[in-house]
Formats: sequence, C-alpha cells, structure tokens
Amino acid sequence: MREFSTPGDVFNALPSRVVFGAGAVDRIDGEVERLGARRALVVSTPGRSAMGGRVADRLGNRCIGILPEAISQVPIELAIRGRAKARDMGADCLVSVGGGASIGLGKAIALELGLPIVAVPTTYSGSEMTGFCGITIDGVKRMHQSLRMLAGTVVYDPSLTLGLPVDVSMASAMNALAHCVDAIYTPTISPVIVPAAMEGARAIMDALPRVAARPNDEQARADLLYGAHLAGAALAGGFALQHGVAHVLGGTYGVSHGLSHALVLPHVAAYNAPFARGAMDRLAAAMGVADVGAAIFDVMETVGLPTRLTEVGFSADQIGEAARITVETDNRYNPGPVTEEAVRGILAAALEGRRPGS
Amino acid sequence: MREFSTPGDVFNALPSRVVFGAGAVDRIDGEVERLGARRALVVSTPGRSAMGGRVADRLGNRCIGILPEAISQVPIELAIRGRAKARDMGADCLVSVGGGASIGLGKAIALELGLPIVAVPTTYSGSEMTGFCGITIDGVKRMHQSLRMLAGTVVYDPSLTLGLPVDVSMASAMNALAHCVDAIYTPTISPVIVPAAMEGARAIMDALPRVAARPNDEQARADLLYGAHLAGAALAGGFALQHGVAHVLGGTYGVSHGLSHALVLPHVAAYNAPFARGAMDRLAAAMGVADVGAAIFDVMETVGLPTRLTEVGFSADQIGEAARITVETDNRYNPGPVTEEAVRGILAAALEGRRPGS
Repeated sequence: MREFSTPGDVFNALPSRVVFGAGAVDRIDGEVERLGARRALVVSTPGRSAMGGRVADRLGNRCIGILPEAISQVPIELAIRGRAKARDMGADCLVSVGGGASIGLGKAIALELGLPIVAVPTTYSGSEMTGFCGITIDGVKRMHQSLRMLAGTVVYDPSLTLGLPVDVSMASAMNALAHCVDAIYTPTISPVIVPAAMEGARAIMDALPRVAARPNDEQARADLLYGAHLAGAALAGGFALQHGVAHVLGGTYGVSHGLSHALVLPHVAAYNAPFARGAMDRLAAAMGVADVGAAIFDVMETVGLPTRLTEVGFSADQIGEAARITVETDNRYNPGPVTEEAVRGILAAALEGRRPGS
Repeated sequence: MREFSTPGDVFNALPSRVVFGAGAVDRIDGEVERLGARRALVVSTPGRSAMGGRVADRLGNRCIGILPEAISQVPIELAIRGRAKARDMGADCLVSVGGGASIGLGKAIALELGLPIVAVPTTYSGSEMTGFCGITIDGVKRMHQSLRMLAGTVVYDPSLTLGLPVDVSMASAMNALAHCVDAIYTPTISPVIVPAAMEGARAIMDALPRVAARPNDEQARADLLYGAHLAGAALAGGFALQHGVAHVLGGTYGVSHGLSHALVLPHVAAYNAPFARGAMDRLAAAMGVADVGAAIFDVMETVGLPTRLTEVGFSADQIGEAARITVETDNRYNPGPVTEEAVRGILAAALEGRRPGS
C-alpha cells in the first residue's frame, strides 16, 4: 500500500495562481487587486530594498509601505516585529519580494495574522511554492507548516533574476536541484509531482551552464526559473536526507543555504541510488545522464561552484558531530538507511570533493 | 507573458490526500475518521450497490446509509433528492464509490451542503481529482466548478477495477487519455501538471493493451489506474476542443462518455499537432511514438475499440449541426482554430475511421 500524503494532510496544497513571464512584476497591482486587498505591505531584504521599492511603486495607492528587514532563517524577534508592524499599519496583504529570506518573513507574519501572500521570488529557492517555514528561536531553527503560509499568488518574472550574481545564482539553482532529487523517492510525494520533479531537474541541469556562461541571457534565466518553479512544487511534495544534511551544515556550521545543498548533493544522490533504483533510473533518463551523482558533480565543476566542504570552512573533525545531529534530526523519509556511518561517508566524500563513481 | 491559472483562480486545487493500493478500500473507515466524520453517506449507482455495500460494511457505525441512485450527467432532480436525503439523514461526509456518475452525484450534493467528500473511483474517468461537475437541467448539461466539490481524500484501490468489463475499461481509459492529451496545450495548465499529463499518457498507452489482454492482471490494472490518476490531475489543469467535441457527441447525440472521447481523440490530436508543435512533440517522445494521433488510433484497434463514429449511431448528416454546436460552446483554449470547417473535418475523419497521417 502506498500513501501519498504528509502526516499533516496538506501535501498537495500548491499556490492557486502562478503568473510567469518577463515583465510580470509590472502587473503586480492587478494581482493584489484580484485578492481583494487594498493595503499591501511589501517585504524585502535590506539589500533588495530597491527592488521592493519598484514593486511598491507599481502598487501605487494599494501599497502602505515597505518592510526591508528580512534576513535568512527568520529569527523569531524579526517575525514578532514584522507582525506588529503589519498589524499597526493595517496591512491586508503581504507582497514578498526576494529570495528565501523575504518569502520566509512574509510567511512568518502570515502564520500569525492570516494575511494573503503574493510571492515574487528573485532566486531559485522554491520557498514560494510551499507552506513550510523555518523560524529560528535561540539559534535553533524550527520548521513550521501551515496553509496560512502558502502563497495565494506567485509572480515569476525572470527579468528580476538578471541581477543575481553568478555565484549566488549557481548556489541557489543547486538548492532547487536538490529539491527535485530529494523529492522523487520520498513516501510523501504524489505521483502527480514526481514527473514535475524530474522535468525540473532536467530543466535546471540544462539551464545552469547557460546562465553561468551568459548571466544576462533572458531565455536561460527564464528556463532556470521555470526549473526552480517545478523544484518548489517538488519541495512541497517531500524531502529527505539531502535536506537533513544540508540543514545541519547550514544551521550548525554556518554554510550558506545554497552551497550546503550543492556540496553534498552528488554524494547523497550516489548513496541513495541503490536504495531507490527505479526512481533514480527514471531521473537519470529524464536528465539525459548515466549517473545522477556524477553528472551533478560535473556540472558543479563546469559552472565554477566549490566541490569540497573544506572550501566553505568545514573540517574533517566536524564530521562525527555533524553525522550525529543529522541522524538525530532525520525525518525517516530517506530510501537509504540514515546511520551515522552512512552520513560520515557522505560528508567525507564531500569534504574531499570525490567525484561519485570514480 | 504566460499565466497559469483559470479565470476562477482554483487551478491548482487538487485533493489534499490520495491513498493508492490494492486493499486500500478496506481502510476507508480510517479515512473517514481522519476527516472527523461520524455519519458518512455512501453514494453509488444502482449497478454498483454491492460495492457500495462493501464500503458501507467497512465503515461500520460510521455509515448512516447508502444512496444507490447515481446516474450519469447528474439530472438536477437527482441532485435535489440526494441533497434532501443527505440533510434528512444528518450526513456529515459523502463517500462516493464508482465512476463519474457516483462521484458526480456526491459533488452535486456537496456543492449545496458543503460536506467533505471521500472519492473511491472504480473507473478511469478522473472526475475524483477535480472540482468540476456537469449537472443536467431540462436536458442541458451545465458545468459547475467549486472547491466544495473537490474531494478531500481519494482512495484508489485497483482491486475494485478488476470487475470492470474490458470494453467499458477501454472506453474509460480513452477518456483518461483524452484528459492528458487535451491538457498539455491549454493556456490554463500549470507547468507542474504538464509533465504529469505526459507521464499519464505514457502509462495509459502502456497499460491499455495489457488490461485488454488480461483484464484480471492486478499489476496492469494498477498501472492503468495510476495513469488515470495523473489524467485526473491533467483534467483539473485544463481542457479544450477534444472535450468540446466529446461533450457534444455525448450531450446531443447520446454517445457514451468514454467512446465519445475515444472516437475523436486521434483526429483532434492530429488537428492540433501543427498548432502546438512543442507540446505535441514532447508528448510523442513521452509516449515513445512518432505520431500521437496515429499511435492512439492504432492502440484503439489493438484493444478492440470502435474507430468509426458510424459504429455508435452517428451519421454523416449530423456532422454539420455537431460542428456548429461545438464551435458555439468552445471554451477558446484550443491551440488550433475552432471553426466549423475544422470540426467538420475532424468528425468526417472520425466517421470513416481514417488513421491520421495515412
């Protein structure tokens, strides 16, 4: 018997409206109006406040202000401050512009206030497609899941991603690719989403080197964002050890979110392959490669991403502790057994940058 | 600019929980309990009342009765009677067991009463995956669309399909295949659902001849039901001329629902191919065939389905009127222009059973 749902029963919930296209952000006013909102609060990071300002301009009278305070991992103090501001200003809608930080802060506000969300992603993180959010209390990131945090509308405008630096773009795209790979063999993913995850992986692998070579190529950027959209749907479908390891590298050892995924993805894929042969074979066929782990490793070298954990300050003597935390926090959805020995093996391979299968 | 949503903004709404597996129906009690319901009303057709009874037995104290009155196209009188019975009996949940008729009646009741639906499909119609329902008033079928009609839980149990006669199975599977083909080029389909539609088409084409050859092969039945599940998601994503023509053949000329789809599908696919080249090429690749229309025509011959409209009592002198009604009721989502001339050409090819491309 196969059961396709999360324990929380929100599995297949995806945003009900998705608008995709160059220039889509210029129609943001109509999207907010469609939700019946008149007092939108724009949420952005300090670094992207200009982009937030552009969105606020497009909203005109429908915007009551900008909250350019988002930082990654959503510290609870920030969430509390954001909720108070949204309440004090009488916001009836949140427009999150940016990457995981902005979208996360919008979610954390909506979780308490129940405001509708319009998400305008400018990276490839996929957060805009899910009702998940990590909120950090006293340095510990706790995952929350609620339909209140699910965006009602997502506006993808590839032109907003043109300014994303190549190294950040590549790391963010690897985060998206990790969603696709780590979803296909989970017990919670729907058969409806599996093909989307595979098509997302294909699209990302295809677009990655093109964006690296020509960061201003609008078609390549659109193709990568399309892949990231599918990856977000895959993330909503399920995740397993890949996300567990990356979470520990990010949460405990300060590795940036995209790189924490990239550095272990080839090795987690290689580890899981014999335990999820059917799914991994289909994924390899969709990607047009012989071996998923090796192909991901190769594309990372091609686009200039680091391939060794030592390059991001992680050292061999941290492997034991990282493996222990990973096993402790494992969600039990991984096809291969999540033992300390297995995770130590994955981290050792990532530390040295060994090409899987070689 | 590409926009992925229906005018009603309910595009991506899919059932939040899907259980799939042989014997799944034996756990129906737990599924109803999960919804917090204690007074389930089982809905079935008169012909499937034994199957409805089996489900009622499994529900035990949680079942307040069976309504074995469903008939296809949901006449409004039936919907009104069903609502009154559900209200009088104090039902707090509807468990629809059967094909499109049972699931349709459950939807029509839920539309008014707002009761949660557990759908237990026993055919390949895909209705269990959507919030659409056609209700017939004075012989005219009107489409309704509401989240109230979207099943909360869908239970697929391939063992329930073992008794479906081969000819009915084949026609129903062609209905599912029509959902997959007619969805991929619509302006309302999400990129997340396109790969599911393609995988559904692949799975159905693969399973159809196996079920025809060995109707009691549980794996073949499970594979076909898996394809039908994806087809249901595709149907929720969008539909165009194929459904328009089939609707007219069924609604105005009394052709059974599955056959009305089967008989025109090769020809609508062939007509649309040059207008949706990218999508149709991807579909052909997913199906592993050179030409979608010809391949569908061939599989129909292989599994013993009729290939000529004359075989279901439709005659040449009805083509003109049928084409006119099809154009009048067209939803404007079709890639190829929906003109009377175009529809006459499709119907003429279907009338004679011409293999597309030959």
